[in-house]
This record gives sequence, C-alpha cells and structure tokens, in this order.
Amino acid sequence: MKNEKTGALTIPATDDIRAAGVSGLDRRLARRVLELLDQPTLGVVLWDGHEIALPSTTPSLKAHIRDRGAFYGLVRNPSLHFGDLYSVGRVEVEGDLVEFLIAVYDGMGEKGRKSVLRRLHKLLTPRPRANTLNESRANIHHHYDIGNSFYELWLDSEYQQYTCAYFPDPTMTLEQAQVAKLEHICRKLELKPGDRVVEAGCGWGGLARYMARVHGAHVRAYNISREQVAYARERARAEGLADRIEYIEDDYRNMSGEYDKFVSVGMLEHVGPDHYRELGGVINRVLTANGRGLIHSIGRNKPELMNAWIEKRIFPGAYPPTLREMMNIFEPQNLSVLDVENLRLHYARTLRHWLARFESHADKIESMFDRSFVRAWRLYLAGSIAAFLTGSLQLFQVVFARPRDNQLLPSRAHLYK
Amino acid sequence: MKNEKTGALTIPATDDIRAAGVSGLDRRLARRVLELLDQPTLGVVLWDGHEIALPSTTPSLKAHIRDRGAFYGLVRNPSLHFGDLYSVGRVEVEGDLVEFLIAVYDGMGEKGRKSVLRRLHKLLTPRPRANTLNESRANIHHHYDIGNSFYELWLDSEYQQYTCAYFPDPTMTLEQAQVAKLEHICRKLELKPGDRVVEAGCGWGGLARYMARVHGAHVRAYNISREQVAYARERARAEGLADRIEYIEDDYRNMSGEYDKFVSVGMLEHVGPDHYRELGGVINRVLTANGRGLIHSIGRNKPELMNAWIEKRIFPGAYPPTLREMMNIFEPQNLSVLDVENLRLHYARTLRHWLARFESHADKIESMFDRSFVRAWRLYLAGSIAAFLTGSLQLFQVVFARPRDNQLLPSRAHLYK
Repeated sequence: MKNEKTGALTIPATDDIRAAGVSGLDRRLARRVLELLDQPTLGVVLWDGHEIALPSTTPSLKAHIRDRGAFYGLVRNPSLHFGDLYSVGRVEVEGDLVEFLIAVYDGMGEKGRKSVLRRLHKLLTPRPRANTLNESRANIHHHYDIGNSFYELWLDSEYQQYTCAYFPDPTMTLEQAQVAKLEHICRKLELKPGDRVVEAGCGWGGLARYMARVHGAHVRAYNISREQVAYARERARAEGLADRIEYIEDDYRNMSGEYDKFVSVGMLEHVGPDHYRELGGVINRVLTANGRGLIHSIGRNKPELMNAWIEKRIFPGAYPPTLREMMNIFEPQNLSVLDVENLRLHYARTLRHWLARFESHADKIESMFDRSFVRAWRLYLAGSIAAFLTGSLQLFQVVFARPRDNQLLPSRAHLYK
Repeated sequence: MKNEKTGALTIPATDDIRAAGVSGLDRRLARRVLELLDQPTLGVVLWDGHEIALPSTTPSLKAHIRDRGAFYGLVRNPSLHFGDLYSVGRVEVEGDLVEFLIAVYDGMGEKGRKSVLRRLHKLLTPRPRANTLNESRANIHHHYDIGNSFYELWLDSEYQQYTCAYFPDPTMTLEQAQVAKLEHICRKLELKPGDRVVEAGCGWGGLARYMARVHGAHVRAYNISREQVAYARERARAEGLADRIEYIEDDYRNMSGEYDKFVSVGMLEHVGPDHYRELGGVINRVLTANGRGLIHSIGRNKPELMNAWIEKRIFPGAYPPTLREMMNIFEPQNLSVLDVENLRLHYARTLRHWLARFESHADKIESMFDRSFVRAWRLYLAGSIAAFLTGSLQLFQVVFARPRDNQLLPSRAHLYK
C-alpha cells in the first residue's frame, strides 16, 4: 500500500540555496526563534553544522535543519511545516523526540502566543475541513482505512482501542488498561443485561463486543469507515456475538430507534463544533426517558484549532473542543451533565505504549508503506504525548441524562468497586 | 427582629373587587392557565369557592385564590407574584406544597415555555441586581444577616452548612450528610496537613473548621456577611482553632497571598456571570503551581434567570449558572477542569431535612419574625425542593488545576475509600 499522506510537500527542495551556505541573517533569525521559545534545553543546528543556542545554555535537544528552504518554511508556519519537513528528513531531532516536543509546546505557551510571529501563523492556519455527510466520509476514510493490519501492530490485541486507555494503576499493561477503560465506561453508563445501546463511531467494534459479551447488552454501532465495519462484523461473527451486535455503515446523523444508552468514544473530535447541536438533537431523538449517555473526547482548556499538520496529514476535519463548546450538544436539549472526568495523563500513558509498540515494528511498517510514513507517524504519536503532558490537550468523559430523570445513583462509588 | 422581606407588596388588596364576585372571564382565564400547565393533579379554586379543573380530572393539589387582584397578579407574572401572594395568604395551597410546586414546575416545562404568556413574563422579569463591591455587601446582608439564631434552628448543629449536603447513603442524618459533604470536598482537593487554603464565601465558617480540625489545614476564609464572620471567629476561638483559621470580612476580589487550595462552596450563586472572569483572575493570582481548586454551586442545564420572587425577596443578586457560563471562570486562565459532579438530588434531600426542621420550629420562627416570614420561607424551601426534583436546578462541584500540573492522581478512587 502506497502512503499518500506525506506526498506533495509545499516547500520545494533547495539544494542550490543550501550550497550557498548560512548567512548572518539566518543565524540571527534562528536565535530569535530560540528567544521566543525561551527553553534552555533547545538548540538549533543549521545546514552548515553551525549550532545556535541561548546564552549560557548547553542544549540537549537540537533541531538539525538541513537546508535554508526548510528553515524558512519552519519560520513561516512551524506547526504546519515541521511535520512535513521532519517526515522527509529535512529536519532531524537530536535527543529524545518526546522531550524535544514537550520543550517546544512549553515554549509556545502563554508568552510565545503573543508574539507577532505566532499571530501571523494563526492567520496562515487553514480552517479544518468541513464535516458534511460526504466530507466526513472522505475524512474518516483518509485515516482509518489505511489498513487494519497496520493498526493491529501497535494497538491492544483484544479490543483494538484507538482511544485513551484508563490506568487506575499505572503499572497496568496496555491490554489491561483498555479493558479498564471499557469497564469504566460501562459502569458510568450503569449498563445492565438486555440494555439497548447505540454507539456513534465504533472503531473496530471493541466497545460493542465488550458490552455484549461482558454485560449482555444489545448494541447497534454506527461507523462510516468501511474497513473498520467489515473487520468489526467479522470479529463479532467469529466470537458468536452477531445476534447481539449490529454494525451499521452509516453516519451518526442517520441514527434511528430508541435506546437505553448512548455512547460515543473518540468520535466527537471528527464531528466539528458546527455539528454539536445536531448531535445533541440526534441524542435527544434516540435516548429513552431514563437513558444514560457518555461522550469521550479529546478536548482543550481553551479554544484552539487542531495542530495544522495533524489536521492536514493525519486527521482531516478534526477539532478538539473545550467543555464550553461541548455544552452545545447538551444545553439546547436540556440534557443534564452528571459527571465529567478529565483523563489527560491517561492518554499520554496510552500513547507511550503505542509509540513503543510502533517503534518495535518500525521496519515492518516501513516495508508496508515507506520511510516518510514511519517518520510522520512517529512524530504524530510523540507529538500527541507532548500535547497531553503539557496540557495542550485534555481528555473529557462526560456522562449525561435527561433533566427529569430522578433515578440517579447516590454516588459514583460503583465506579470504584 | 422585624422582617422587611415580605413587606411592600406590589398588588393592592382588592376587597371591593372580591365583593363583586367571579365573572365568566375570570373562569375562562383560570381554565386557560390550567390548560397551559397541563397537569391533571392541578386545580384552581376562585374567591367565590368555584373550582376550576381540566376536563375529566379530579385535582388533589389546588391553588385557592382569595381575590381578583391576586388572580390577575398571578396571571401577569406568576413567578414574581405567587411568592408575595402566598406569603400574605391571598393565595393558599390545598394538598402537599412540594407536590403542588413540582406539578407547576413540570407544567412550566418545554411546552409552557413557548406560550405567549410565558414570553410576556420573561420580558417583565427584572435583571438580577448588580454585584459590585457595594451592591454585593447589601445583597449578602439582606439574606445572611437576619440572625444566626434563626439559621441555627434548622441547619445541621455541628457545621451550620447552608449548602447542599452529600448523602452517599440516603438514610444518613443531615448532620452525617453535611460531614460527608465536607469530607468529600477535602478529598477532591487532596487536602493534606499544613496545606494553605483560601476560601471564598465561608458562611458560618464550618468548612474552615472542618479542614483545620480534621485535616490540619491552615485556612484563610473570606466573607462579607458581618454576622457570619463574627459567629465564625467566636466558634473557632471557642474550639481552639484560632491559630489555624483566619476569617476575613472582605470581598473575594480583595484576596491576597498564595495558597495550595482554593475552595468556594455556595458563593458563586452570588457572584453573577459578569464577574466570573474576574473570579478566575483572582484564582489565577492566588493558586500555587500544583494547587487544586473546587467550586460548588447551584446551576442550570440551560441559561435562565433565578426565579423572580426568590431573587427579589430571598436572594438579591443571585444567579445559578450553566456549566458553559462557569467556563468563563476557567477558560481565560487556561485552568484545567479535572472533575465535575452533579449533586442535584442531594440538594432536594438536604432541603427536605431543612424544611422538616423549619416546620418543627414554625411557631418559634413566627414569634421571632411574623407569619408572612414563615410562609415566605416555607415557600422558598418547598419551591427549592421542587426545582431540584424537576431538574430546573442543578448542583455542580467542579475541581480544577493548572494546565501544566502533572501530579494528578490516577483515579478518583480515593473519594470512595
């Protein structure tokens, strides 16, 4: 399978410029960038081997910039171009990649945010792609249909969860933590045998299988990724769960029926804030009077677009909402938020497991795709660890019910038994 | 002590109109009101003894309206005038008062909300009073300085908590449930011996005493109610806690110092949404890098002004926010919401305890104030039970931290040990 993601780069190769050597202006600009980031661990090595560092620092984390075209691409729009340039090796990182990205995230915090350069980058950042019925299908196909066998290499073996795991005990394996996440969600939903569940965005069908097998629920699960639905159906059939799970290749907006539970894990990032009200309307249409719902999503403390490179190359149309923005789902329907839990550091830990497994299969993945694919995904996974560790990204689980439902449990103790 | 709250009514007594009897128009209008509410349990008895009910219903909950002036006052603006008219006995309720108010709340739900009458009432509802430094002082004095001995009659004996208790076991006494609430808050804050705590709006000082006595914390507690601060200081001195608690008669906006924990229980309702951003700024100013904060407040699923009568007679300046509105505290400061718990039904249960105790002292309270005071407070407590039971009001506890704080506990299990 050929990788299309790291194909056409917007910055032309500049062998002729590289040959021209490094100018005084190049060095001053590199120093200015380091001053804005203001991280003593960070340094820059220019294409002539010249190293730039802040005064009285000995950086352990260095960006090696291989040519002037790469350098000016970075200066112009680092969040968009760093990923592409790293993928093809025109930028290299010396030192731990995650630590390097953490320092960059920290440097881009409050102070850097106000600089003229940052404001310019914001202007240059394109809006995420739309999520109409057709666009959503294309966006989801782009990421999830690149091959089940690729994801199987580094996701947990049993449930293929491509969402944040739950590590109440930090020594848990990835497999244990994904089961703990599934169970945590079932408990939050107060799932009972025979419950009718509707799931919006079911991935490879793991949550539905868990709910049906462990809790005896009947699940109807929606997904617009053809490869995922085919895989999920086959697994459910093979495990004798086909009578309790129906996987439907369709958009969440086309949901019908009535359900005791609504659940959506890791889909909201692909819905887009313009459609939250519509999603709330769907929930309001399908949830019973005493139903429970849960939405699990990457989020933000304050509104910000998804990193431009991730949105362009990895997750087209993706947007992580703030809690305020999420309220557009619940408020217009008078749905009552019962519980919000922020699992930010659990996602950093999940990603560490994924990255380690990914690295252990790097050669195989390179043979399935190519070298720039491996580098792009390495950067995406490492960058996500850094984003969660620096508080740039959050992970919200929100439980909700109808406003007049008085059959609420007296505490959340059942989650911890 | 003379009660000023139920003094000047806006509807003149109308003995002459009452003498004129009930017209056909009066009856049709009463029937129209019942149709809008659409609750089979509700009926109206007009001042000539004539009973109005919906077809084929036998209402068990009846509003007796004593004169035409009262009737038209109700029709014009029920949420404002019902309280005043009930207080002076121009409206009486036959049947359980809480059940009656639940039916009214249910009737005023989605359907009634759209009626022309409801829209008119909304237009006539005044905005809550402002909460500038001076106005806040007057607003708080109005409610909290009517006499500690009054509140002592019906609040829990040990900690004088005038906020929602926590009943993880519904058979708990009020005293047990208030201690459970205090402990729940301390656990959510991960309170440790020696922690420096700042409290915004400390009531009679119960939480500060609990934190100092049980957890060995050092608490600086702000309150602008003179009587409450005097009481709190005296209690802390008598209990040998004066070296660990400082009660400050000042506005939360004047907080200074640095603290490991920020806590505010039942103050946000008095802050007003125009000041949430300012409150967030105060928190950002005083909280340490690894500090924890908790705000406990009455809230809403969707934005709506406080009931007009409550705002006018009981809680001037009060406004219960939605979660979306509360985000104005956290978002501009990049504070990270870790946990939200909705304790709505716990407040209904708390209020049931309060109302029962209040009723058991009704004669004494009438001798301290007057009959209309007793009726106004009975209505306020019963109405609040109905508001929480029907989902008109919520109770949110929000835990937050700084975005870069990675010393987060791996789960919330410690709350349930």
